[in-house]
Amino acid sequence: MAMPCAPDAPILMIGGSSVAQPTDPLRLFAELAGGAGAHIAVITSGSRSPGTVGARYERVFGGFGARATAYPLLDRATANDPALLAGLETADAFFFTGGEQLCITARLGGSAALRILRSRHAAGALLGGTSAGTSVMSSTMIAFGYEGATPRHNLVNLSPGFGFLTGVILDQHFSQRNRLGRLQTAVSYNPEEIGVGIDEDTAALFQPDGTFEVAGPGTVTVVDGLGISYNTSPDVEDMTLPLQIEGLQLYRLQAGDRFDLLARRATAGGSAVVSRQSSVVSTR
Amino acid sequence: MAMPCAPDAPILMIGGSSVAQPTDPLRLFAELAGGAGAHIAVITSGSRSPGTVGARYERVFGGFGARATAYPLLDRATANDPALLAGLETADAFFFTGGEQLCITARLGGSAALRILRSRHAAGALLGGTSAGTSVMSSTMIAFGYEGATPRHNLVNLSPGFGFLTGVILDQHFSQRNRLGRLQTAVSYNPEEIGVGIDEDTAALFQPDGTFEVAGPGTVTVVDGLGISYNTSPDVEDMTLPLQIEGLQLYRLQAGDRFDLLARRATAGGSAVVSRQSSVVSTR
Repeated sequence: MAMPCAPDAPILMIGGSSVAQPTDPLRLFAELAGGAGAHIAVITSGSRSPGTVGARYERVFGGFGARATAYPLLDRATANDPALLAGLETADAFFFTGGEQLCITARLGGSAALRILRSRHAAGALLGGTSAGTSVMSSTMIAFGYEGATPRHNLVNLSPGFGFLTGVILDQHFSQRNRLGRLQTAVSYNPEEIGVGIDEDTAALFQPDGTFEVAGPGTVTVVDGLGISYNTSPDVEDMTLPLQIEGLQLYRLQAGDRFDLLARRATAGGSAVVSRQSSVVSTR
Repeated sequence: MAMPCAPDAPILMIGGSSVAQPTDPLRLFAELAGGAGAHIAVITSGSRSPGTVGARYERVFGGFGARATAYPLLDRATANDPALLAGLETADAFFFTGGEQLCITARLGGSAALRILRSRHAAGALLGGTSAGTSVMSSTMIAFGYEGATPRHNLVNLSPGFGFLTGVILDQHFSQRNRLGRLQTAVSYNPEEIGVGIDEDTAALFQPDGTFEVAGPGTVTVVDGLGISYNTSPDVEDMTLPLQIEGLQLYRLQAGDRFDLLARRATAGGSAVVSRQSSVVSTR
């Protein structure tokens, strides 16, 4: 279903960071995986330097007391080789590193590795990822795109994701790379979708009750299209022209804030105040 | 989930036709809706001439003994107006006409009309559509694209669909508009997806057991990416260059043939023989 559905078990989505270093969201992931001794499978299928990246995450998660193992599943033969996948069957948590999200879905889509991961997640195993590893979690994902605050067709290219989360479109490096335009464009195509843009070193923890909570120093931006009243998206044929969208709801969430995907409602956590704006993106 | 899931109730997907005329797939839809006296809601949200198109389908379904009513839900206010939607609550079947699929999702996504339709379908009501009305049924849909047999990034633009079918990407006017290239491209992004390309005046009837059966004079083409062994799709950055994909399975199905989406297996119906090719799309 394209409408928001709750995941089977928690999913921690991080908005990327320049290097794999011991940030609070990564510490949270290790804790949620089970803390000391927990076995974390690190999937580096999206990375251009899987060896370096895998070793870094093994070190970072190891520093938090977990036992992390990198799985460089870099082609379909590897992702379907039972001898290489045995360790996945007993992992407590699965973490997708960054890189290119199309590499992750093209290499792992329908593979034996993904089947194990689905089965473990359905049984309660934690999932997580950063950057490209965040994008792949939804039914429809942003495959690639461009910067900019104004929605235009040519800012975003979408493709089928793994569908662990339905009814949402995730984006990452969100404030740092000025990605509001592409997320608005994606939501304008089907206003039932909820856009979730996550900043670097910041995380959204999705729970089986259909809510997510923000952790880390940055913000998470929610683009809710349900109230869209006017939308030129289906009519504008020139891919470079701005789209006019009226009635988008924008939420800027900080650490401790929660968003309920089913009720489409934010609640402030701690001393934070949820900033909610009714947005008119006008191009006239 | 991105892997194929069976729908709650039957869905009849037609590959479009030049005009709304009484074809066998439309007769089949009326029969499946309940035959004489069945109430069919015709949703014309995708159409550029909703009045004409709605009246035509009312006449065609009426000719088969059904009671069809056109619902020109052409903007979000209409799709959320309870006074206009009361009749949907008692419809036995819902039929989406053709046109522009982005108009359908942008106008109806998250609307009260779609909520009624989801609830009726979950309770067993038949769904169906033709052309654009077929495209919108899956989690990720082809929003727009171009003709050609060779896969290239610039042939296809995807977007979030309604998700009544998961794990498939539907295409229509398939042989008539030479759309094999764009469907292969879409599947190359995530080989877990099953591409289903439906010819004009031809239908695929999706059943809750996870199979579909072909009806009508044309063919249904299945593109199964599960066996892809080599795939340049994530690496080719030039949108105009051909993609190299090895190990796609192609099936050409005719009336009476069935395809099992969960087992990814075709069975011939009647005297037809299922043609299955292991395809190497090579561009070297």
